[in-house]
Amino acid sequence: MKINRALISVSDKTFIIPLAFLLQKNGVEIISTGGTKKHLQKAGINVVDISSVTGNPEAFGGRMKTLSFEVESALLFDRGRDKDEAEKLGIKPIDLVVCNLYPFEEVAKKGAHFDELIENIDIGGPTMIRSAAKNFKYVTVLTSPDDYPSFMEEFKNNQGSVSYEFRKKMMVKAFNHTADYDSVIAQTMDQETGTLSKRLHFTDGKNLRYGENGHQQAVFYRLKDAGHSLHGIEILHGKQLSYNNILDVTGALYSVREMQSPACAVVKHSNPCGLAEGENLRQVLEKAWQGDPVSAFGSIIAFNRKVDKSIVEFFRLDAKDKSQRKFIEIIVAPGYEQDALEYLKHHKNLRILVYNPADLPVTPDYRFVPGGLLEQTPDDKLYEKLETVSGDFSQISQELIDFGLKAVKNIKSNAIAIVGEKKGYRYLMGMGAGQPNRLVATKLAIEKAREFLKMEWENHKNKDWNTFYNREISRALLISDAFFPFPDNVELAAGNGIKYIVQPGGSIRDKQVIESAKELNINMLFTGIRHFKH
Amino acid sequence: MKINRALISVSDKTFIIPLAFLLQKNGVEIISTGGTKKHLQKAGINVVDISSVTGNPEAFGGRMKTLSFEVESALLFDRGRDKDEAEKLGIKPIDLVVCNLYPFEEVAKKGAHFDELIENIDIGGPTMIRSAAKNFKYVTVLTSPDDYPSFMEEFKNNQGSVSYEFRKKMMVKAFNHTADYDSVIAQTMDQETGTLSKRLHFTDGKNLRYGENGHQQAVFYRLKDAGHSLHGIEILHGKQLSYNNILDVTGALYSVREMQSPACAVVKHSNPCGLAEGENLRQVLEKAWQGDPVSAFGSIIAFNRKVDKSIVEFFRLDAKDKSQRKFIEIIVAPGYEQDALEYLKHHKNLRILVYNPADLPVTPDYRFVPGGLLEQTPDDKLYEKLETVSGDFSQISQELIDFGLKAVKNIKSNAIAIVGEKKGYRYLMGMGAGQPNRLVATKLAIEKAREFLKMEWENHKNKDWNTFYNREISRALLISDAFFPFPDNVELAAGNGIKYIVQPGGSIRDKQVIESAKELNINMLFTGIRHFKH
Repeated sequence: MKINRALISVSDKTFIIPLAFLLQKNGVEIISTGGTKKHLQKAGINVVDISSVTGNPEAFGGRMKTLSFEVESALLFDRGRDKDEAEKLGIKPIDLVVCNLYPFEEVAKKGAHFDELIENIDIGGPTMIRSAAKNFKYVTVLTSPDDYPSFMEEFKNNQGSVSYEFRKKMMVKAFNHTADYDSVIAQTMDQETGTLSKRLHFTDGKNLRYGENGHQQAVFYRLKDAGHSLHGIEILHGKQLSYNNILDVTGALYSVREMQSPACAVVKHSNPCGLAEGENLRQVLEKAWQGDPVSAFGSIIAFNRKVDKSIVEFFRLDAKDKSQRKFIEIIVAPGYEQDALEYLKHHKNLRILVYNPADLPVTPDYRFVPGGLLEQTPDDKLYEKLETVSGDFSQISQELIDFGLKAVKNIKSNAIAIVGEKKGYRYLMGMGAGQPNRLVATKLAIEKAREFLKMEWENHKNKDWNTFYNREISRALLISDAFFPFPDNVELAAGNGIKYIVQPGGSIRDKQVIESAKELNINMLFTGIRHFKH
Repeated sequence: MKINRALISVSDKTFIIPLAFLLQKNGVEIISTGGTKKHLQKAGINVVDISSVTGNPEAFGGRMKTLSFEVESALLFDRGRDKDEAEKLGIKPIDLVVCNLYPFEEVAKKGAHFDELIENIDIGGPTMIRSAAKNFKYVTVLTSPDDYPSFMEEFKNNQGSVSYEFRKKMMVKAFNHTADYDSVIAQTMDQETGTLSKRLHFTDGKNLRYGENGHQQAVFYRLKDAGHSLHGIEILHGKQLSYNNILDVTGALYSVREMQSPACAVVKHSNPCGLAEGENLRQVLEKAWQGDPVSAFGSIIAFNRKVDKSIVEFFRLDAKDKSQRKFIEIIVAPGYEQDALEYLKHHKNLRILVYNPADLPVTPDYRFVPGGLLEQTPDDKLYEKLETVSGDFSQISQELIDFGLKAVKNIKSNAIAIVGEKKGYRYLMGMGAGQPNRLVATKLAIEKAREFLKMEWENHKNKDWNTFYNREISRALLISDAFFPFPDNVELAAGNGIKYIVQPGGSIRDKQVIESAKELNINMLFTGIRHFKH
């Protein structure tokens, strides 16, 4: 299938000159239109005007250029079956179409007037692209400059032709190009006429070994044009990620994403059960682990800083006594020092991932429900106000309040987090997640915080347990993702020595809740913002 | 804009005859092609052949019919600006295009050979539709028989023309039609060449008052062609659904969907905290409520049967003592008797929804992660096997095992459910949801089951509490959504009087777990299937 005749009409003119030169050098006749023609001619390329092919003038303010029986026939006729018919009709084949469409999206984004939007809808381009794609057995269609290098390579190596496989690949790209193009037009026109619609294009699906459970099949797709998609996450070591791994990695990355200081999250079933931030990443990891050392086994661990060996030695993966080794399922960080990587590879089943939480793509939140899609803006605000409604917060740092809110908003609702601060380190001491009843979440968080402090105490034991517990818990902060409907949570917290509570406020019984806080010597802060997460 | 000339070329011939008759009666010249032409002529309609307009023969096995400078010009030229130019070029306007495309999807679904797929890609149709749509200021384009009635209405009422608004609406539909068409082609061609892709089209977006929280904006879309989308759920009473309502309603409907007997779910934060099935729906509701009477306040309640007054009187919405009224946020059922509806309306903030859980659309499960999409087949299998690994299950009904598995698979992981059966009723006695540590989930479920039994006991008190508790709990079933990694859960269950445990099995320590069950007189069943849900 030697290429003898090409039609070039491109909006994106990147690399079009070298491509055209190569074609011309190999004796390919080049047909072109409007702006592309001028661009090629300026570079000294001989170009045949489209009018001489169509037999028609460029007409109607440019609306009619290529659209014609002659051009579409030249692209569409079957070189085998229709050969004689084409000759009789005087149709000379066009073997290559190089065409891309002016991105309608950009006109729309510029806030163009409706008439301008309409005028920008290309009719001839998509017809040409679709005609060439349909007849890909004989015709090559290039819709992106990305494909010129491999085209030129094939063209040079095959004496002026390209392989069937290449043409087929370009056909698929072509239909994706026109589908994307009309998708944007349809979505924009919907919007112009008062309908909110959404067309999402996912590609590069990878079959996962199974879904959420072994008897479910699953595929993982990349959202087209999504930037740092989790789909492309770099795996330095270990098996492919499973369905649940992907969910857990998401939870872990979100948990450390907003932290300014070096931070670490320990995640199980999408919830952070350990979370800490502070100066030294090793200390941070230890604090995070301490949040729930039992659940931490088999967990997913995320960092927001590059990791060195001194940090990961914490896992004691080389311990002779195997029971000393801290088995985790996944570690994800923006990077690893070589020695850290070597050390981690001691654990052959560990998945070692590279991803910087700061790179998480800023897209809307999408949630599928039966036959529908929920779209929402992300929960990217910590508080609306900081109003002390009982006692005072002068002994509590702003950093700790922020840390607590970042923690609670990443825990599934109903969520309660208890956080502490010491020597510049902030850490989750206990949390209650996913409870129908907030009181149960509070109970769970307090139990965990007690275990956390027990571990601290066992390292020092320089006081009796009760004195130690009461002193430590009195400096901690209990954060609720939503308001307290009754004073019972405050009473439970007070009964366990908690002195500081942060909650959104907004209940019809706020007054009662505040009174109860005052009576029980609880300092209470209202943030004005709820952080439900489901 | 009087319609003088129409081009009709349709794959779906529904109602095309009456439409053509009306046009003919009003003196509209009808141009047509191939099969459509024959169809119209058979009905006695005068049709001009497309060839006489294009000046070209139908060529290349039908690939070239309408595609031409003449037809596309007739559709595209600006009736104002380009009037003289059109006259000079001998272009006579075409004012109406009736065209729909042969659904490529159906050819693909029939498992057509690749060449047949390619041959089925329509080039002329989309070009005609897109040309007419672009020039909608002057041209009407009909792409679906659904629109013929309103077209005919307008056409009759406006002496042979239709309004700008109508044409604009049709333009939007047209671009949606071509976008859908190329989306299916692109997706199919991707698949044919080894790329898994997915294009999802959502429409009819409704702005919600806010998202998961007040500071987040949200939109709720309908998945195109989704059948009984939750988007179209009928609201008989109360405000629009909020973002969280939609998630909770989803959880509630799924929880009762698989139940054969009359069933009821009480949902908070997407998890069922109460669930029951049995003969009498009122009894079922009472049992479901008893699962967590505290959390049930403000909950979402779903039924799988039509609801009458005797059932909803349970809520005591007309109680003089307001504290006796059981406030719920949403009730959803396949239908309501008139008296039930009137009774429920006592509660002015209650949202009363009509939806049959059996109608939930069978689509894959989709889950959005940063820059990606997880797709999986639904979790629609209860067990792979029923293997008694300790003791025996002859005293436990198959119905109770099924009920327990249906319950646990709708509770977020780690999940533990304790279920009971009495007099043909099966019910959730307690559950632990969303825990990083399975032992905590077990603890939560046991605590709740104890509270459940306490309520039973308080109604009778014909035995002392311990005797009563031990008898009742010994007949209950504890279900775990995943295997036990250690015997600790078994020990905890045994220590609280549990005698029956159902779990998937599959841990490397299964042997140890089974031994522990045997020692502790626990009957244990392996199902071979995990039911994680996140």
